[in-house]
Amino acid sequence: MRALSARGSLSAAQIARLTGLAKSTVSMALAELRRADVVIEIGSDAAGSVGRPATTLSLNPEAGTCIGLLIGQSEIQVIVADVAHNVLTDTSLNLERDYDPEHAIRLIRELISDAYAEQWRSQAGLLGVGIAVGGPVSNSSGEVMRGGIPRWTGINLQEVFGPIFDAPVFIDNESNCSAIAEMTWGAAQGFDDFVVFTLDLGVGGAIVSGGKVLRGIAGGGGEFGHVVLDPDGPLCRCGNHGCLEVYASFIEPLDEARRHFGQPGLRISDVVQMALDGDELCRGLIKDAGYAGGRGLGLIGSVFNPPLIVVSGRLAPAGDILMGPLSEAFERYSLVKSGDVGEETRTILRPSQFTDNGGCMGAVGLVLRNHGGPLH
Amino acid sequence: MRALSARGSLSAAQIARLTGLAKSTVSMALAELRRADVVIEIGSDAAGSVGRPATTLSLNPEAGTCIGLLIGQSEIQVIVADVAHNVLTDTSLNLERDYDPEHAIRLIRELISDAYAEQWRSQAGLLGVGIAVGGPVSNSSGEVMRGGIPRWTGINLQEVFGPIFDAPVFIDNESNCSAIAEMTWGAAQGFDDFVVFTLDLGVGGAIVSGGKVLRGIAGGGGEFGHVVLDPDGPLCRCGNHGCLEVYASFIEPLDEARRHFGQPGLRISDVVQMALDGDELCRGLIKDAGYAGGRGLGLIGSVFNPPLIVVSGRLAPAGDILMGPLSEAFERYSLVKSGDVGEETRTILRPSQFTDNGGCMGAVGLVLRNHGGPLH
Repeated sequence: MRALSARGSLSAAQIARLTGLAKSTVSMALAELRRADVVIEIGSDAAGSVGRPATTLSLNPEAGTCIGLLIGQSEIQVIVADVAHNVLTDTSLNLERDYDPEHAIRLIRELISDAYAEQWRSQAGLLGVGIAVGGPVSNSSGEVMRGGIPRWTGINLQEVFGPIFDAPVFIDNESNCSAIAEMTWGAAQGFDDFVVFTLDLGVGGAIVSGGKVLRGIAGGGGEFGHVVLDPDGPLCRCGNHGCLEVYASFIEPLDEARRHFGQPGLRISDVVQMALDGDELCRGLIKDAGYAGGRGLGLIGSVFNPPLIVVSGRLAPAGDILMGPLSEAFERYSLVKSGDVGEETRTILRPSQFTDNGGCMGAVGLVLRNHGGPLH
Repeated sequence: MRALSARGSLSAAQIARLTGLAKSTVSMALAELRRADVVIEIGSDAAGSVGRPATTLSLNPEAGTCIGLLIGQSEIQVIVADVAHNVLTDTSLNLERDYDPEHAIRLIRELISDAYAEQWRSQAGLLGVGIAVGGPVSNSSGEVMRGGIPRWTGINLQEVFGPIFDAPVFIDNESNCSAIAEMTWGAAQGFDDFVVFTLDLGVGGAIVSGGKVLRGIAGGGGEFGHVVLDPDGPLCRCGNHGCLEVYASFIEPLDEARRHFGQPGLRISDVVQMALDGDELCRGLIKDAGYAGGRGLGLIGSVFNPPLIVVSGRLAPAGDILMGPLSEAFERYSLVKSGDVGEETRTILRPSQFTDNGGCMGAVGLVLRNHGGPLH
């Protein structure tokens, strides 16, 4: 059940491979789960098979729901998905950058009630709640750490959200959740080792090694936005000076675009769309952010020399406008130059497949991977 | 055999745990190996046991030898060890910084012949040769990459050393080898996740995740010395500008000490000894290198937030003279501040236990872990 819930749909043979269980054990368990209507047949996959096509199985969408929650820099988002990870509702709200946590918690409760009411569903079958936080969170306690969302610092999310739901709550930072989404359904499918690099209002990332997200001893792993480039540089929200985020965050470029177009409500996705439509100012802003980010990414390259880097965040849909200067700076500032190594040992740079809701979908993935204990 | 060869000495119960084999299988195999004199009893370990003390077993030192080889910035080193990793001989030679590879290869062959002759041993029982290189090496081909030892760049070590020995050759960079030494016999025993940070003439490191060294897709993982701090900074030997190594390498401080004391043959270990004896100049040089290194280490901290950092290289024996400013800068420039997290989630900084021969002993470890295929 956990294999199906993490991967979506699988054949019996794939389940046996993934879980290490004997085929006979898997097929006995499946027979029982199908009788109980928990597992259903969703089709057959003839691709590449020689004998009769394998039946593809999935969890029955009616078997339960998960909630994915994003607590971001200036937004909150709620996704309700079934165990087959079909998205039932996806709602987000933009807030002021310094929004009040109390207020946000009330909004989140309302959004969730509305989402279930809309779907005529009860929260009785809720498997768990995944929370993606736009900054570092403590592994052990679920406490929001410094360097994330200023007014949430020190708030214990497990204590806040635990009592609200009659289901387990799983917490990780947004970038780690994005990594789970990319690995499970996105740009990193088939990779056990990769790095996610997030360019957005905040700059962050995640490290996946051997299929596991490296969270760090205190939950501070993958905080690429807070590598100090210039100790004499401008103050960062984390309290240090000259962090990568200070140079590559899209906060200032977004403000510039808002001023330029006289539209205070302009969003990153609007800037990206205008850039794609050929607007020179928007193209320039994205290019500059890409190059600044690429400098930091080069540094990450020298640290890991990873097989794959997935570029995530709401700038990713800008495609080559972003990826061009980003790749150029990456190549320039990392140790291993692509011209010096064979094709098969070159780092692949690829935009994310979850640009709008990677963190929040990853929070759903967090529930699917962890409810009832981790799969591995 | 491979478990014993990687870990030195173990009880039958520990072997069963490590290998995942049934106890009965292990004890049958051990009975046979003891009859054949390949495995010997070296004592019994009563510590912490309730019942009768467990017999500690080890490979018979007579069963074979390994060669560990270090190809460094300005030195070569040869260690011959038996399979129980007793060091039989350990010889190193200092060379000019731009030494000729051809010449070095001849010297290495002589050192090895001498080592075996001295020990009245034959190379017939040679299990393998491990080579630690003072810079990045390609995983796939064994080719020395840019950014390491300039005159060796492009040389394929597998092609050079393979034909010389009638045994498999294993190649990795010096810092990765040091990590193996620390994990197996040194400061990182009991840790599955840690980072090695090397301060020496070169600056480097290694990343260990889940007990495995992360080498990077092209062998460029853990190259902490080549993260670019200032794109407008001085040219680094790797071709980029303003790398951490430019600021934290001990090349210039060593030259300064040599000039100051009028001793062109002064070594890092001499500077460390004088600092420990109270010499202010030497203390200052080490402190400055420690602080400069710590700035880079802070950055590594923000990337990984690791449970343990082992500080390696020939400056490590300076103890607090080095570790004080290094820890101070680490604390200052990393995202997670030790005051903000509980004792049990603080990153531990600890000097290496292999300061003289970590790379070369790790090369021995490389053979012990890999001959006959990896243990895991």
